[in-house]
Amino acid sequence: MSDSARAFVPGHVTGFFSAHPDDDPTKAGSRGGGLAIGDGVTVELEPGEGLELNGEAAAIEAVDRVLDALRATARVVVETDLPLGAGFGVSGAAALGTALTTNAVFGRGLSENELVTIAHGAEVQAGTGLGDVVAQARGGVPIRLEPGAPAHGAMDGIPQRRPLEYRSFGELPTEEIIAGDTDELTAAGDRALSALVAEPTLETFMESSRRFAREAGLLTPRVAEVVRDVSEAGGEASMAMLGETVFALGSGLSDAGYDAEQCSLSLAGAHVL
Amino acid sequence: MSDSARAFVPGHVTGFFSAHPDDDPTKAGSRGGGLAIGDGVTVELEPGEGLELNGEAAAIEAVDRVLDALRATARVVVETDLPLGAGFGVSGAAALGTALTTNAVFGRGLSENELVTIAHGAEVQAGTGLGDVVAQARGGVPIRLEPGAPAHGAMDGIPQRRPLEYRSFGELPTEEIIAGDTDELTAAGDRALSALVAEPTLETFMESSRRFAREAGLLTPRVAEVVRDVSEAGGEASMAMLGETVFALGSGLSDAGYDAEQCSLSLAGAHVL
Repeated sequence: MSDSARAFVPGHVTGFFSAHPDDDPTKAGSRGGGLAIGDGVTVELEPGEGLELNGEAAAIEAVDRVLDALRATARVVVETDLPLGAGFGVSGAAALGTALTTNAVFGRGLSENELVTIAHGAEVQAGTGLGDVVAQARGGVPIRLEPGAPAHGAMDGIPQRRPLEYRSFGELPTEEIIAGDTDELTAAGDRALSALVAEPTLETFMESSRRFAREAGLLTPRVAEVVRDVSEAGGEASMAMLGETVFALGSGLSDAGYDAEQCSLSLAGAHVL
Repeated sequence: MSDSARAFVPGHVTGFFSAHPDDDPTKAGSRGGGLAIGDGVTVELEPGEGLELNGEAAAIEAVDRVLDALRATARVVVETDLPLGAGFGVSGAAALGTALTTNAVFGRGLSENELVTIAHGAEVQAGTGLGDVVAQARGGVPIRLEPGAPAHGAMDGIPQRRPLEYRSFGELPTEEIIAGDTDELTAAGDRALSALVAEPTLETFMESSRRFAREAGLLTPRVAEVVRDVSEAGGEASMAMLGETVFALGSGLSDAGYDAEQCSLSLAGAHVL
């Protein structure tokens, strides 16, 4: 137990996914592939009340659900340079960071799998994500083979490292999309996963992600144009699920003339600081 | 594919374990708890022949087995500041680093789980380790809940971070011990794991490790004396399995008057550089 604790949780960009609802939130989730990135979220927590996001009072349902599950009353300060609602898993990161820091401050004595399970369930029940939390807990280039929290899910990873770039043009409503009809999306996601499992490389990940974005009907005109520009400049880009955001390997976006944020993969998963 | 590749694999100190032999080397392994540390092993690999360990020609059977499994003929350069044969998992690290770099150089297109499986199987068949490889692939403070490579094993982790110290006084013969009668050792390891699962904290890990070393009859007089000295100075220490090595939380060894190496936990698992 300590007076306060801090945690870092990597951002997570999903390239493709399939949705797998279940009445049990620890079994619900998604299959898919993504990138855990070094631009992430820090959570600082101490006994008290209220949530602050980048210096302003805010509400994040998944965070409230984590605090309820851990029976803690806490002041939670969330800080991130990542764009919000743009496909970087900020809500999942806030939930996971809250679970890790609550465990430390209130001496709950839970394991990493137990804390990930609580944060994953909270995010699923809040309707704000299906697979970011387990990927953010792992780090690297996570492949979600089976949906759900650690006791039910299964993961693998791509053993490559590359610098990355991203550029966000705005938000997309995750909750509406994953609460709607996801049959077509899930069929496209399953095809993308099969291709990636057959050849788990970053190049196949990017290609599968582009095909998924097209087949699932999620590409916006602006994202489609930027992805095309990066391809024409010889690079590899795709769309972050779910945001109006393009990510690219190496300097793909800069090479195509776009202002872009540069970042690295986060080899480490979420952790207390 | 590239001309050469490098990988970093963290060292791994096992505090307690139980041995679980199986005819299938991907199912064989150990349960237990340990620490992945930032002092580790780098492997550089290119097409060619021969293995070099810290600048001298050497033979590591687990490395040869990995190269055989991946049908590669390579020159492997292994470098580490860790003491050899002293409980830091150097052979497992060399095997895992060889798997990661062979995959990169020879374009084998395998996933992280597949490469970990090959390295784990090679280490088990060489008789030089039972659980270091899966722990080194994960990073952090790994708890091995079920033995074996990723398809069969199960892991959790302790969500705490502390600086560490270690001091090695010499080697112990891992192969003889794990090939001998391990019934008593495994009973003690199972009790230690139950205690840690009930309360997955670093303090419980250290206490369970000390009890295991005593109950399994592995404590040498010198290690017992150092662990006692650290306790009397108010610290927490135990014995690395399997080496005549003492590790401690924080500055436990220095506080007791011993010269010690300082290191951090490795939050990242093994990875190509």
